[in-house]
Amino acid sequence: MNNFSYHNPTRILFGDGQIAAIAAEIPELARIMLVYGGGSIKRNHVYEQIQETLGERIVSEFSGIEANPEYSTLCKAVTQVKADKIDFLLAAGGGSVIDGTKFIAAAAQFNGEPWDILLQGGRNVTSALPFGCILTLPATGSEMNAGSVVNRSEMKAKMSFGSEHCFPQFSVLDPTTTLTLPERQLTNGIVDPFVHVIEQYLTYPVGADLQDRLAEAVLQSIVETGPKALADPQNYELRANLMWCATMALNGLLRNGVPQDWSTHMIGHELTALYGLDHAQTLAVVLPANLRVRKDAKREKLLQFGERLWGVTETSHPGSADERIEAIIVKTEEFFIAMGAPTRLADYGLDESAVDAVIKQLEQHNMVALGEKKDVTLDVSRQILMAAL
Amino acid sequence: MNNFSYHNPTRILFGDGQIAAIAAEIPELARIMLVYGGGSIKRNHVYEQIQETLGERIVSEFSGIEANPEYSTLCKAVTQVKADKIDFLLAAGGGSVIDGTKFIAAAAQFNGEPWDILLQGGRNVTSALPFGCILTLPATGSEMNAGSVVNRSEMKAKMSFGSEHCFPQFSVLDPTTTLTLPERQLTNGIVDPFVHVIEQYLTYPVGADLQDRLAEAVLQSIVETGPKALADPQNYELRANLMWCATMALNGLLRNGVPQDWSTHMIGHELTALYGLDHAQTLAVVLPANLRVRKDAKREKLLQFGERLWGVTETSHPGSADERIEAIIVKTEEFFIAMGAPTRLADYGLDESAVDAVIKQLEQHNMVALGEKKDVTLDVSRQILMAAL
Repeated sequence: MNNFSYHNPTRILFGDGQIAAIAAEIPELARIMLVYGGGSIKRNHVYEQIQETLGERIVSEFSGIEANPEYSTLCKAVTQVKADKIDFLLAAGGGSVIDGTKFIAAAAQFNGEPWDILLQGGRNVTSALPFGCILTLPATGSEMNAGSVVNRSEMKAKMSFGSEHCFPQFSVLDPTTTLTLPERQLTNGIVDPFVHVIEQYLTYPVGADLQDRLAEAVLQSIVETGPKALADPQNYELRANLMWCATMALNGLLRNGVPQDWSTHMIGHELTALYGLDHAQTLAVVLPANLRVRKDAKREKLLQFGERLWGVTETSHPGSADERIEAIIVKTEEFFIAMGAPTRLADYGLDESAVDAVIKQLEQHNMVALGEKKDVTLDVSRQILMAAL
Repeated sequence: MNNFSYHNPTRILFGDGQIAAIAAEIPELARIMLVYGGGSIKRNHVYEQIQETLGERIVSEFSGIEANPEYSTLCKAVTQVKADKIDFLLAAGGGSVIDGTKFIAAAAQFNGEPWDILLQGGRNVTSALPFGCILTLPATGSEMNAGSVVNRSEMKAKMSFGSEHCFPQFSVLDPTTTLTLPERQLTNGIVDPFVHVIEQYLTYPVGADLQDRLAEAVLQSIVETGPKALADPQNYELRANLMWCATMALNGLLRNGVPQDWSTHMIGHELTALYGLDHAQTLAVVLPANLRVRKDAKREKLLQFGERLWGVTETSHPGSADERIEAIIVKTEEFFIAMGAPTRLADYGLDESAVDAVIKQLEQHNMVALGEKKDVTLDVSRQILMAAL
């Protein structure tokens, strides 16, 4: 196991009715701004519950945070924060609203051009407004980590930052708020956490037996629960389990002491920035191709993953290790497809011209040495995209 | 899954050489007291490393914290804390030193008789001195939770308390500090975490699939790593894995949203208080008997545990479910015995007279309704002890 430092101070309030608990979590005299997206929180009664709980303690509201939150929108929110002398942010929504709120929190206390936060990945963030979250769309894990991804459309840039100062003070995870989500969002909430785990697990062995097994536990639970939730979308227990899986997949615990990949995410981000694919759709496309191209470097963990998650063993699949690896990747693809996320660029109307465009973007964003061994060069990324056609 | 609230702000610094990192974690002007046990930290160079890192920042030392830390000893430490105007405690040792330091931290800021903290289980603790830990004996998980167990020999009492104010600020987990431990402590570091997981897992199903699988991941890793570490005690990777298993077993994560038992611990505490058995030894004795006596209430989880941990299935063990459950309990006993912890009272020179004595203690300490359904009455506890003879 590699050395590591782990710290996660976010308080989780999990379960039906927990929105009512937030009043006690926010400092009594705080001037609160409520931050949300397109108004789905008004349809699913989350807005109503927040008002009931906090009432006139909410000084200000900022709505209109987009999926893939826009830099320009967030800058407007920062202006409003300053004008209204806000000292606590309450995010209500999914990963985009929470990511956006993290950026608002950091930018509101940042000296200089907020864009620099993204250019430096957050290393220059020295403080942030405190904030809490009410999660209504589980997928990204943002509710229990200190990372954020922000979009700047005019530059076709999707940039990330992270800072110790950007952990939520608390996050409410009430599975009932997810019961009304459209199927596409349920798909995203299955595929995105699955790939988050893979990025921290499917690399090379470092003797971290417990870390491997914890990662496999989350994968097994997603694979067990995902299909049932799609078939029975009003089932609270299944939604509760998926919601907790999504949080556990990216709260920092699984990466402790192990190498991490993240090349699938970096390539996928460019597909979203260029063509507007959902984040999870890009992952479903890039991951299988990525595993095929890099199967030699990932051989040992691929075989372990296949055996422990999909039951692919020498007994079940006689033949060469390469044949077993292909069977393992096919099973992973089949899972994504069954969850509603097709795995080929062609499924989203993209062809070889997209490959050149993505490579150009990766080059512009200096994504030229990705993966756990920094050996995913532009040439390797091109092979991956070609394998995903 | 049941509703839950989860919060764990302790920072973990894991790996070889991490003691050097503590200087940056303690406020610069803090008046530090170093708290430790019988001096093993001087033999294993931990004391030396602390001195190198903190030098003259250590204002005061308090040594002599016993295994099962004594109330009277801890009260002496509190007096010294006040005399030396200490505002940061640094615990170096195992669960007893850390548990003791938590009590010192709470008692130093407590108005009234410190014994009241234990009588009220910590509900009356409103603040505590900040403290950090250097863990040298992994087993109890105290390094990443807010609970503590304190002994008061003259009353033959082993009492526990917990408080949100008693999380360590940081804990260093350097596996090299465990390489010189005697085999008995390695045994304890395998059996104790195993049973910690069981107390939070082996109850009844509540649809918490991920929580079950996370618990099973820790159990699987202990079962995989424990025998290897006993056979190869100088192996860093194996010790690192066991160390992290022990922390993960009791940092609050596994109990989220599920019922908990803890009757094995409560009965075991009395065996330690009366006869001085190691904590882990008491668990190895009480757990198998407890499972036999309460197998009907725990039937579903016992069968799941047996299948996922020990591979006991209808195929491997044709016959009745009761026969499979007995096979599962036998495998658990065999594991404890192989790890060096015999599973019968007789193995520790105790006979039926111990049963009466323990029951009397449980009655005195009001431990009359234990377990996940509060149905472990004194009569059930007696059956358990009789089954453990």
